[in-house]
Amino acid sequence: MIERFIRDVPDFPKPGILFKDITPLLQSAEAFPECIDQLAALIPASSYDVVCGIESRGFLFGAPLALRTGKGFVPIRKPGKLPYKSVSQSYDLEYGKDRIEIHVDAVSHGQRVLLVDDVLATGGTMDAAVKLVRQVGGRVAATCFVIELLFLNGRKRLGDVPVHSLVKY
Amino acid sequence: MIERFIRDVPDFPKPGILFKDITPLLQSAEAFPECIDQLAALIPASSYDVVCGIESRGFLFGAPLALRTGKGFVPIRKPGKLPYKSVSQSYDLEYGKDRIEIHVDAVSHGQRVLLVDDVLATGGTMDAAVKLVRQVGGRVAATCFVIELLFLNGRKRLGDVPVHSLVKY
Repeated sequence: MIERFIRDVPDFPKPGILFKDITPLLQSAEAFPECIDQLAALIPASSYDVVCGIESRGFLFGAPLALRTGKGFVPIRKPGKLPYKSVSQSYDLEYGKDRIEIHVDAVSHGQRVLLVDDVLATGGTMDAAVKLVRQVGGRVAATCFVIELLFLNGRKRLGDVPVHSLVKY
Repeated sequence: MIERFIRDVPDFPKPGILFKDITPLLQSAEAFPECIDQLAALIPASSYDVVCGIESRGFLFGAPLALRTGKGFVPIRKPGKLPYKSVSQSYDLEYGKDRIEIHVDAVSHGQRVLLVDDVLATGGTMDAAVKLVRQVGGRVAATCFVIELLFLNGRKRLGDVPVHSLVKY
């Protein structure tokens, strides 16, 4: 039933792109908890120690998932937003580059991390997030997404890292 | 016990500012759910219909609070991020202006909204958020914050809107 709450918005963020809008899903007091339950059911809670979400839409699913599964939450953020000592990874955009950061003490050595984002597109952002977690000593247990855009092959980009998603297009 | 998980980071985002870092709070599998429970206890769940959080740190508390209280969640976002028809409000920064946006169909007419953010500082962002909710036909039931910086008088800026906060400095 999750799919019914994902809205197609044509030509966003630019002409020719059909954007998958998750705000109707968040807005529904029935579909939102159902979505978090379904995400929790994708991966056994015993296989990870902490949930890590990527700014900003990854926060909307990762933080509730952490609450639901009784884990702590770690934010991966855009450059310059984290106040404490951080490390960063850059990744390619269609034109140019972007960067994400994590606090150096966000994850304990060997801690198993579940990485969460809303959409798996080309996998560039999540690939950088995987590297960040490893850079600070964590192990990536799995990645999970509400939506996976199959035609963009993000799963391939992530190589051996387990990928789980709820709704595939 | 929440206070123990808020870390002081001096000189962030610029010299002379003592930043209240909430990442240790999020990271703790004990303190994070305790914080969400305490936020939920500040305001009777029967007094609001939907939870609305302000990008990005407001997402980290607002979305789990919505899940915890069985409400839907509405994001207020930075300019250009929301894909559907939106309205915006600008607010003053120390130098210049910034703007936040909400989808026109985010809130039904007369729906009672609980607004959530991590920190109440001068109140400029939350004041703009209150205006946004009213602009799309919602009623503001209350605002709530994890941290309130009393010396910045944000509460006064918000006038008659009820303000709740967990940790006061």
